[in-house]
Amino acid sequence: MKYLPEDDTIVALSSPLGNGAIAVIRLSGSESLAAINPALKRPITAEDARRAIFNEIIDRSNEAVIDQVVTTYFRNPASYTGEDVVEISCHCNPLIIDRIIAQMVNNGARIAEPGEFTFRAFMNGKMDLSQAEAVAGIISARSRQSLTQSLRHLEGRLSERVFKIKDEILSYLSLLEINLDFSEEGIEVMPMEEMRRKIEDTITSICRFLDTYDYGRLLQEGIKLLILGKPNVGKSSLLNAFLEKDRAIVSNIPGTTRDYIEANLELDGLAVQAVDTAGIRDTEDQIEAIGVERALAQMETADVALCIFEGNEPLAADDKVLLELIDNHRETLHVIPVINKIDLGEDNTVTAALAALELPLIKISAKASTGIDDLKQAIKAQVFNDVSIESEEVVVTSARHKLALEKAIGSLENALSAIEIAAGEEILAVDIRLALDSLGEITGETTSEDVLNHIFANFCIGK
Amino acid sequence: MKYLPEDDTIVALSSPLGNGAIAVIRLSGSESLAAINPALKRPITAEDARRAIFNEIIDRSNEAVIDQVVTTYFRNPASYTGEDVVEISCHCNPLIIDRIIAQMVNNGARIAEPGEFTFRAFMNGKMDLSQAEAVAGIISARSRQSLTQSLRHLEGRLSERVFKIKDEILSYLSLLEINLDFSEEGIEVMPMEEMRRKIEDTITSICRFLDTYDYGRLLQEGIKLLILGKPNVGKSSLLNAFLEKDRAIVSNIPGTTRDYIEANLELDGLAVQAVDTAGIRDTEDQIEAIGVERALAQMETADVALCIFEGNEPLAADDKVLLELIDNHRETLHVIPVINKIDLGEDNTVTAALAALELPLIKISAKASTGIDDLKQAIKAQVFNDVSIESEEVVVTSARHKLALEKAIGSLENALSAIEIAAGEEILAVDIRLALDSLGEITGETTSEDVLNHIFANFCIGK
Repeated sequence: MKYLPEDDTIVALSSPLGNGAIAVIRLSGSESLAAINPALKRPITAEDARRAIFNEIIDRSNEAVIDQVVTTYFRNPASYTGEDVVEISCHCNPLIIDRIIAQMVNNGARIAEPGEFTFRAFMNGKMDLSQAEAVAGIISARSRQSLTQSLRHLEGRLSERVFKIKDEILSYLSLLEINLDFSEEGIEVMPMEEMRRKIEDTITSICRFLDTYDYGRLLQEGIKLLILGKPNVGKSSLLNAFLEKDRAIVSNIPGTTRDYIEANLELDGLAVQAVDTAGIRDTEDQIEAIGVERALAQMETADVALCIFEGNEPLAADDKVLLELIDNHRETLHVIPVINKIDLGEDNTVTAALAALELPLIKISAKASTGIDDLKQAIKAQVFNDVSIESEEVVVTSARHKLALEKAIGSLENALSAIEIAAGEEILAVDIRLALDSLGEITGETTSEDVLNHIFANFCIGK
Repeated sequence: MKYLPEDDTIVALSSPLGNGAIAVIRLSGSESLAAINPALKRPITAEDARRAIFNEIIDRSNEAVIDQVVTTYFRNPASYTGEDVVEISCHCNPLIIDRIIAQMVNNGARIAEPGEFTFRAFMNGKMDLSQAEAVAGIISARSRQSLTQSLRHLEGRLSERVFKIKDEILSYLSLLEINLDFSEEGIEVMPMEEMRRKIEDTITSICRFLDTYDYGRLLQEGIKLLILGKPNVGKSSLLNAFLEKDRAIVSNIPGTTRDYIEANLELDGLAVQAVDTAGIRDTEDQIEAIGVERALAQMETADVALCIFEGNEPLAADDKVLLELIDNHRETLHVIPVINKIDLGEDNTVTAALAALELPLIKISAKASTGIDDLKQAIKAQVFNDVSIESEEVVVTSARHKLALEKAIGSLENALSAIEIAAGEEILAVDIRLALDSLGEITGETTSEDVLNHIFANFCIGK
């Protein structure tokens, strides 16, 4: 990306490599037609824009047909990148794909860098930076909610909100600049008191936006859910009950190589990484102790711990170890005590001991799959207990955007201090402009080249 | 496929699942537009045929945008399947793909069976059966030559040749049928002697076609190349020299789990599976003996064995074991003796002993990469010593087609016997019609439903 000549034409496979029927190769640049037409049986003309044409790609070194394809030409600026784009839909075979790309390269195209198509869309004003980032977010989203947010960002709704805040700031920055221009004449278009109130309002609205990041981060990264309890208390059955309900297993890492089992599931559209740990028990056995220790280490990075007890028997020594754990960790992660096997009866001493924790107590039968929905609701309530997000709202999901918003708040707070100590309108104006710049980093107007390179380097090739 | 209602509409992902930017979902059937239009922001009309349209797929249960897509409508009969086809190009995320397909299924489409798009193309007369099989061949081809043949078959050139043979047969079958019609009147339109000659001509031309199968099978399956020799004679270096030259490693199966190393490479456009065996040696050690035994077992399925000797030292006991092996196997597979390390000097007794084998002797230095091209030419010459294929020729690559051609020959030979014993023209006509039916199996006119199901079940879904 760093050495991008303005006028070169790029080519890459845009669909995944793998077992399938169709592959899509994409060309973009002013010389797209020059790169493909010499190899086509039916060369593309300007009149073919947006038309899918049955075609043949021919290896001109020996006039052999490389493949029967469909070509579609998107004429600039009405294309993804804003440049001339050609999409070639060919049979999905790595030999064919390589040979087609080689023909394009022979005719002057070069292999695209990762994310370069989207980079060009950004550079050509087809989308702002937050929308370009949303493209990567859409492709990598692993839950419905995270996908929804990325789509909203792609639609430009995050940018809209940023632009609204910038407009707010610009409205009083411009008045401040008039103050500056006429300062010698002693005219004050906007009194400092009003300026202070307006800056405070902006900080409040940025803070409100920033607050969505807790939720956004969970959307993006998913929830890490730990399942703890003594051996045979029903941890694996619970995991299965979750999976059965959702039928959305993305992957299972079998416990043979680790001392825990992971399953990725979706809980009401949120990605959940559930970890079924080795049984927690009071043990002298060295190997088992290592397993327990690793389960504890998992607590450091978990969002929620489900602590499973048996309802039909008095608390065992192992259960008491778990109760102690709950006491030690209830400040740092969300703990939900769960009584399993309620279909087998209920021991009142257990219920009383758990109720005394003053945590939401859920009763289930993992085997019979009862109480699972209550448990899910409790998990959601715990995770989102201090976040209320309206379903239509746009959420900050990226650490980069969070940082930019925080920097903007910092600059505005400096502006408030400048007013406080009457540092002068010029210093005030500098702080406010810095806040605008920070917000501009989100949409890409003021983003440094290094940051741009970093963002697009994380894209896949062909996007 | 077995329960295909005529009018239903099918949907499937046609591009591979994996890490990529774009995925292509395909709909086919008379209700394709009905299946997609309710979910589209810009419904497709008849005027949109062949036009790529920026669109949005909307989940009508909550009016949420599922993805921004490009839709292209191929109106029947000008489509791959001959039916109404819609291609949806969306962001490549399994969640998006699932949700889009779910919308189509909600609107009456059903998930396609493997190969069902191509099956429909065949049923609707868009291609004959050998062309449909070529589609699968194109996708699975692992060498340039094999790909070229599949493309020729897709172009219909195999069918052309079959049709030409059928026309030949039909020309004398029709005369024979006139004979039959007028037999009571004693008119003989074609004398039996001429009939015999014509049938013999047909058998000759089918045989000539059949002869290409040896080559076709090698194209399709690739060449299995065994590298044999005592430990440290340079077997792995030779494998590396091959790989370095071709830079076409498809996969390497490391020797840690087996007692040999495999590498897939391309040699002048042919797929070669090279197997670097455990060292061949005269050993009392039980475990080593098992390794040697397995190397010998590989010889049963190999096409070529390279037997490597050291040129700068007299023959060792291990070398003599190998010489014995060559003697025992030279009738059943192509053996090429190779003198390695010629850069270190040459022992005349070795050269003399190998020359005495009267096999093509090749001298190389695997380390210095000299003589490798000679060795490759020798391999090709050995493998194709009894096959001469003109580069433009169409080749029989499928065991199914070979069987059909053999059956046709069988029936024509029965016809010859019928003439021989004067069994009567009616019996003769039956044999000739059977030959036509066998040929029809290749192009799909007379293929049984079971065979069809078997052929298309081996396709990938979405093709």
